[in-house]
Amino acid sequence: MLEDLKQKVLEANLKLVEYNLVVLTWGNASAIDRERGLFVIKPSGVAYDTMTAEDMVVMDLNGNKVEGDLNPSSDTPTHLELYRRFSDIGGVVHTHSPWACAWAQAGRDIPAYGTTHADFANGAVPCTRGLTAEEVQGEYELNTGKVIVEEFEKRDIKPSECPAVLIHRHGPFTWGKDAAAAAQNALILEEVAKMALRTESVAAFSAASDIGIEDYLLDKHYQRKHGKNAYYGQGK
Amino acid sequence: MLEDLKQKVLEANLKLVEYNLVVLTWGNASAIDRERGLFVIKPSGVAYDTMTAEDMVVMDLNGNKVEGDLNPSSDTPTHLELYRRFSDIGGVVHTHSPWACAWAQAGRDIPAYGTTHADFANGAVPCTRGLTAEEVQGEYELNTGKVIVEEFEKRDIKPSECPAVLIHRHGPFTWGKDAAAAAQNALILEEVAKMALRTESVAAFSAASDIGIEDYLLDKHYQRKHGKNAYYGQGK
Amino acid sequence: MLEDLKQKVLEANLKLVEYNLVVLTWGNASAIDRERGLFVIKPSGVAYDTMTAEDMVVMDLNGNKVEGDLNPSSDTPTHLELYRRFSDIGGVVHTHSPWACAWAQAGRDIPAYGTTHADFANGAVPCTRGLTAEEVQGEYELNTGKVIVEEFEKRDIKPSECPAVLIHRHGPFTWGKDAAAAAQNALILEEVAKMALRTESVAAFSAASDIGIEDYLLDKHYQRKHGKNAYYGQGK
Amino acid sequence: MLEDLKQKVLEANLKLVEYNLVVLTWGNASAIDRERGLFVIKPSGVAYDTMTAEDMVVMDLNGNKVEGDLNPSSDTPTHLELYRRFSDIGGVVHTHSPWACAWAQAGRDIPAYGTTHADFANGAVPCTRGLTAEEVQGEYELNTGKVIVEEFEKRDIKPSECPAVLIHRHGPFTWGKDAAAAAQNALILEEVAKMALRTESVAAFSAASDIGIEDYLLDKHYQRKHGKNAYYGQGK
Repeated sequence: MLEDLKQKVLEANLKLVEYNLVVLTWGNASAIDRERGLFVIKPSGVAYDTMTAEDMVVMDLNGNKVEGDLNPSSDTPTHLELYRRFSDIGGVVHTHSPWACAWAQAGRDIPAYGTTHADFANGAVPCTRGLTAEEVQGEYELNTGKVIVEEFEKRDIKPSECPAVLIHRHGPFTWGKDAAAAAQNALILEEVAKMALRTESVAAFSAASDIGIEDYLLDKHYQRKHGKNAYYGQGK
Repeated sequence: MLEDLKQKVLEANLKLVEYNLVVLTWGNASAIDRERGLFVIKPSGVAYDTMTAEDMVVMDLNGNKVEGDLNPSSDTPTHLELYRRFSDIGGVVHTHSPWACAWAQAGRDIPAYGTTHADFANGAVPCTRGLTAEEVQGEYELNTGKVIVEEFEKRDIKPSECPAVLIHRHGPFTWGKDAAAAAQNALILEEVAKMALRTESVAAFSAASDIGIEDYLLDKHYQRKHGKNAYYGQGK
Repeated sequence: MLEDLKQKVLEANLKLVEYNLVVLTWGNASAIDRERGLFVIKPSGVAYDTMTAEDMVVMDLNGNKVEGDLNPSSDTPTHLELYRRFSDIGGVVHTHSPWACAWAQAGRDIPAYGTTHADFANGAVPCTRGLTAEEVQGEYELNTGKVIVEEFEKRDIKPSECPAVLIHRHGPFTWGKDAAAAAQNALILEEVAKMALRTESVAAFSAASDIGIEDYLLDKHYQRKHGKNAYYGQGK
Repeated sequence: MLEDLKQKVLEANLKLVEYNLVVLTWGNASAIDRERGLFVIKPSGVAYDTMTAEDMVVMDLNGNKVEGDLNPSSDTPTHLELYRRFSDIGGVVHTHSPWACAWAQAGRDIPAYGTTHADFANGAVPCTRGLTAEEVQGEYELNTGKVIVEEFEKRDIKPSECPAVLIHRHGPFTWGKDAAAAAQNALILEEVAKMALRTESVAAFSAASDIGIEDYLLDKHYQRKHGKNAYYGQGK
């Protein structure tokens, strides 16, 4: 069943590798068929390079496995909660991409620093509160989903306006209209997270008095390559 | 029309991918035929790996589409303004390359820190002022071009002396005698931006008292590999 | 002898290259056959791309070469000591992977900052004390192994609970049930080391008052791509 | 003439690309035939991917071109001075590799922070003094070589003990017994420069009080993957 959707979910998982967002088995993509109320997700701990569409697991919205020989991703209850509560989304992705994880581990929102961010989300990418000991020791993965929803509700952000979240001490979840869009948003989030940290670095450092090329050296190099008597290269 | 130029503009766009300056569709290259007063630019939001020379869009210098089935890049009015006001340039490139964007998002010029920079530009790479709310809400992309020109005029920099600019909160534009040169300058700018931030880091950090290899360990490792009684490797 | 194990050790060494953990010949993997009390290790200073399974060297647990034409890795006595004292491990890997080396060179443990780390180790990854001049000038590589064991005993960490250590001023050793697991743990350690430094950067920097995209620019970019009148891309 | 040496110099230049040390044409390798007193060097500004052994230029130790249709690298007088004054070296490489350039641009020696460094050089990698305006405006590339030699003499470092130098505001030169060794040393220097800056970062930052995974979350993740009731993956 849902052979088309399984193929698309497989491809979205492989995109995570192509986008350099995952090593080993550290990411999972899923997609939902809203009419049937079923979603398809990567199996747990299976290597991307041998995985096939048939390995994908079909789940219903009560968290029951409907089809598949393998265990679904251990993060399945988080995907499930997002599909239940964010009714407009069609695909979900989770990775441990390292730039986004740095912000998540530090427990900070990613501020909107420029237009790359603004093309993606209508404000800061939120970092959730940390889960309590009870939430972690109970239905941990389900509670992770609940904390995401809580954060969006508390801040009054629509999931469509910010297709990404950081889980405190953990890493990112992204979503989109389908699995491919969710994977693409995972890539964009990683770029945005990287640029944001570098932006803060550029703002924190400054032109110290003992650095900066001397005028005569600047002039020499510029002129030897671009000036009237340039001697770099093979001439005309 | 302009089939040769379309091919060159296509190739310059693909160079942006090869140079690792863009992900997804985050960059565009164009080139102008000065005699005919027409320029060729990448279509908006089209994937690089399926794009063909025929997809390129031909524009005149009044901003009218002359040929092409697709919408031109949404940044077309910025390219247009640069061609109108920088009369010596033949190609323009825009990317969201992450090191250059970090400087743009922090709103700082890239200081000339060394000869790699001096081989490229005759001084700091300027960051423009931020656009006003009116400029953003009006003809935004055209105003972006105007702000670039304003910055170069205000600072009395010739476009040929510095083939790059940073747009405040946004990212870089570069130019050159043709599209290939503009793409190459986008690569050089990214290298220069990367080296500049690392230069400031090296200058800001220092040799803290609790780091530094101990003399006996330095000597041991150097001698076990290079000394008279070296035992690393397979001997002679 | 031990042809199967030699093949597995060869493959684990090649994984270090595939995982981007080594340049030149800067890493070595080994594995033990506990029943026979013999382990197989990479030869010293041999290039990965020409190395064959036959080049692997067989050693006994007294440090004698049992089979092989080449000298074993100069780090062999460290592997040996780990096999002798950590009785549950089946494979050992040493690299100079750059993120882990940065922590080792600075002499700091890698704190547990998030779930990527928690999936790997049950607490901080320890950095050993520095070796004394006597330890360095004596049986250096053996003493390196002894210092690792000392650190785990002193802190009461089981090797199975933290499959990695940093040698002070040097770099990482990792282990696992076999050579492949040890190589995989070397990759995970490098990811964890990278995320940890970036986490401290994110925590140290902050949203300075002069950065952050202006609301009108945020809105413009978000709307031109996602709003009702979006004009990025080719429309529907 | 010197066809074998030309082939080796070509291959060393291509290694710079393979090692990711150069973009565009930003690096050059040379090698000397000490018996004939001739050295072979890359032509100036020629692309690596179309360059052939025949394009290599043969120079004598007075700086005269002996064979070759193309102009030699503009850095030829620096190579020449190194061959004249460092009588044991057989190959020289210059790149603008970005980590080494960061240290050069900041004008700092690379301190010996660990064994990776100690395997390479018997102490800090020196950064030269800046050239004076007169030295820059005169025989600039020759003076660059002279400043390198001056730095090694002043500090009483033998070129064989430290096969690398940083030119102030510029970038690295490395050498070795032949062109291949010089190229390999350029790679090692870049690794050492990268690790050194990261080591200073690790030492400068610290475990801030508001980061660090909570015990219950650490335990949860460790146990769900490695504990008795682990549920990550597909079980046995």
